Amino acid sequence: MAFKNDPPGQWLSTLPPGCLRLSSGYPEPALVPSEEIKLAVARLLDEERDLPLHYLGSPRIPQLKEFLRKRMATRGVEAAEDELLVTSGACQAIDLIARVLLDDEALVAVEAPTYMEALEIFQNYTEHYLTIPIDEKGLQTELLADLLADRKVHGQPLPRLLYTIPTYQNPTGTTLSLERRKHLLELAEQYDFLILEDDAYGELGFQDRPQLLKAMDTNNRVLYVGSLSKVVAPGMRIGWVAADERIIDPLNWFKKDLNHPFDQATMASFLEAINFDEHLNGLASVYEAKCATMLSALEEFLPPAVSWFTPKGGYFVWVKIPGVDTSELLPKALAAGVSFVPGKYFFLNQQEGLPYLRLSFSYASEEEIVKGVELLAQVIGISIPQPEQETDRQ
Amino acid sequence: MAFKNDPPGQWLSTLPPGCLRLSSGYPEPALVPSEEIKLAVARLLDEERDLPLHYLGSPRIPQLKEFLRKRMATRGVEAAEDELLVTSGACQAIDLIARVLLDDEALVAVEAPTYMEALEIFQNYTEHYLTIPIDEKGLQTELLADLLADRKVHGQPLPRLLYTIPTYQNPTGTTLSLERRKHLLELAEQYDFLILEDDAYGELGFQDRPQLLKAMDTNNRVLYVGSLSKVVAPGMRIGWVAADERIIDPLNWFKKDLNHPFDQATMASFLEAINFDEHLNGLASVYEAKCATMLSALEEFLPPAVSWFTPKGGYFVWVKIPGVDTSELLPKALAAGVSFVPGKYFFLNQQEGLPYLRLSFSYASEEEIVKGVELLAQVIGISIPQPEQETDRQ
Repeated sequence: MAFKNDPPGQWLSTLPPGCLRLSSGYPEPALVPSEEIKLAVARLLDEERDLPLHYLGSPRIPQLKEFLRKRMATRGVEAAEDELLVTSGACQAIDLIARVLLDDEALVAVEAPTYMEALEIFQNYTEHYLTIPIDEKGLQTELLADLLADRKVHGQPLPRLLYTIPTYQNPTGTTLSLERRKHLLELAEQYDFLILEDDAYGELGFQDRPQLLKAMDTNNRVLYVGSLSKVVAPGMRIGWVAADERIIDPLNWFKKDLNHPFDQATMASFLEAINFDEHLNGLASVYEAKCATMLSALEEFLPPAVSWFTPKGGYFVWVKIPGVDTSELLPKALAAGVSFVPGKYFFLNQQEGLPYLRLSFSYASEEEIVKGVELLAQVIGISIPQPEQETDRQ
Repeated sequence: MAFKNDPPGQWLSTLPPGCLRLSSGYPEPALVPSEEIKLAVARLLDEERDLPLHYLGSPRIPQLKEFLRKRMATRGVEAAEDELLVTSGACQAIDLIARVLLDDEALVAVEAPTYMEALEIFQNYTEHYLTIPIDEKGLQTELLADLLADRKVHGQPLPRLLYTIPTYQNPTGTTLSLERRKHLLELAEQYDFLILEDDAYGELGFQDRPQLLKAMDTNNRVLYVGSLSKVVAPGMRIGWVAADERIIDPLNWFKKDLNHPFDQATMASFLEAINFDEHLNGLASVYEAKCATMLSALEEFLPPAVSWFTPKGGYFVWVKIPGVDTSELLPKALAAGVSFVPGKYFFLNQQEGLPYLRLSFSYASEEEIVKGVELLAQVIGISIPQPEQETDRQ
C-alpha cells in the first residue's frame, strides 16, 4: 500500500504555543455552543434514558433527518425520506459518493484550487482528473466547456463526476455566479456527468444565500452534500447527502459504520431548543465583522504586490504573494507566531499553488487577526523577491 | 448498483408494540450508563468547553486511545501508539480492513454461522468464500486444515483473510478452545493468511476470559478488533483495531470520516470516572444470571427435539429446531409477542441456517426471557413437524 502524496493531515502544521491560528478552518470558539450541547445531552438522556445509547430506537434520530429535510426545503430542495442520508460529516458523504460512483477508470473534474481532503478522497479511487481554474466568480465554466468540447472532439473520456464548492469556496472564498451555475448544469446535461455540490459553508453568507445548484437541478444531476460542522460543531460529525434515491440507496449500503445515535440525537436535541435562522444570523454577523477586520489588516499591512479575493461568506481569504513559495514561508511565519495553510495543498499539481496561501478568519479573535496579519506582513516583507509596481487587488 | 442479498438490516424485523425482544443484540437497558454519560458530558464540556466539539484538540481523544492500549496490555497485547486505531465501532473496523486487504479476487474464510453484518461487509469486496462450520468448541480447525490442504494440492486459491469471533461468538455463543486457537495460528502461518479476530463480546465472560488470539500471535498475523458497544453503549460507536503498523497506516488513510471527537472524548470522560474491571464484573454477573434463566426456560418449555449450545459469556443462545424453517416461524412468533433472529441470516448459504434461530438474553428482563421462551415454545409446538425421540442437547 503506497501513497503518492503526503499522509493525511500533512497540511496541519504543528503549531508552537501561543501561535495565532490563521490556518484553522474551525468555528470561532465562543460560537461553538458547548453550554447548549451540555443541556441538550442532559435533556436527551433525562427524557430518553438509554435509547440514544443503543444502535437504534431514539426518536431523535429520525427527527434530525426531518430537520435536515425541512431545512433543505427552505432552500428550495424537496428531498423525500429516501432522498436524504445522514453521514459522519461531509467527508464521509464525499467518500461514500466516490466509492459508489468512481473506479480507477473514472475521470473526475475538480476546481483548482479545492478542498484538500476531497482531493485525497478521490485519489483513493482514481488517478484521472480534469482541473478547472477558479476566478473571483468561482469555477470558470467557459473553460470547462472548452475542455469538454475538446475532449469530445478527440474521443477522450469525459468526466463522470464534477466536484464543486460553489458557495464561499474552500480555500478561495469565492462564490459561483448565477450565470455560471446555470451554465454548469447545462454542461452536466450536455456531457452527461453528475455534480457533487459541497455546501459546507453555504449557510454562512454575510448577507444573502446564493441559490443552490441542487435547487436549480431539474435533471437529477446534483448530489448535494451538507454539513453542520461549520455552523454548529465539527466534533459532532453531522453531514448529509440529498440526492436521487438511486444514489442514496447504495450510499446507505456502503455506509458500514452505522448511524451515530449519540451524536445525531444530541444534535437533534440541540436543534430543537434553538431558532436555527437566528443562530445562523448570529454567526453571519460575527464572521462578517471578522472578515472585514482581516481584509482591513491585509490592506493596511501587506505590500501592494499581494492580492486576494473578497469573500461574501464562509471562513477564508485566499491570498496571492507573487514570486514566493508559501510553503517555504510557513516555518518563518510559525517562528514569528502566526499560522496559515500553504496554497499548494489545495492543488492536484502542487506547483500551481506555490504563491498562494489560505487565511482563516473564523477561529482567531479580531485582535489576533490584526496581529497575525501584521506578523505575516513582516515575514512576507523579508521573503518577497521584488515588489511589483501595480496591484491586482479586487 | 445491484445487490444480491437483502438490503442492510433485513434481519431486523419490525417489532409489534409490547413484543418481547429476544432478537436484539443490545445491552440490558439498566446497564447502559446513561446517567454516568450525562455526567461525563457535563464534566467534559465544563472542563474543556469547545475543545471536544472541534475536529481536533481535546486531550481526551488521545486519552481514549491510551485507555484502550492499556486495556489491551492487561489482556496480553502490547500495542504501540501506531499499532492501534480508534474506529466508529467494530463495523467500521471490519470494513476498513476489508477495504485494505481485499479485492474481487480475494478468498475470505468465514465461520458458518457468523455475524451477518460482517458477511455483508465482505460481500462488498469479493464473492469468494471458504466457510468453516462451528461446533461447541468454535471454528473446526481440523476441517479448515483439510480444506486448505485440499486446495493446496489442487492448486486452488488460498484465503487471504480468515474472519473469526473466537470468544462468545455471534450468533452461536461458542468459544474457540485453546487447542484450536493454537492450531488456527499454525495454519495461518503454514498457509500464509491473516486472521481478523473480532472480540466484540470477549470482555463479557461469565467466569474467565480466554486468551486472545492476538496475545498468542508471534508472527503478526492477527488483526484484533475490539468494541465498547457491548460493554458500555453501542450508540457511542467506539471500536478499535490493534494490528501491525503496516496495517494500521492504510486503515487510517482510508478512514475518511475523521475522528469523532464528541463521542470519543465523552467515552474517555466516562471511563476515567469508573473502575472498568468492576464495571465488567457487574455486567458479567447480570448476563450470567439472565443466560441461566434463558437456559432453564428452554429446558422447561421446549420440546426434546430442540437443542442449543451453552454459552460461557456474551449475549446469545443458538437454538436448533430440526425440520423447521425458522424464518417461516418468525411471523407467528411476532404475532404471539416474541422476537428472534432466523438462523439463515448468519450463513452465506442461507439454506444451511433454516432450522436455527438466535436468541439474545442481553436486552430482555429475566421475566421477559421466561415469558418469551414460553411463547416461543407454544409457537414451535404448533410448527414442529415430527418430534424426535432423542435429544442432542449439551
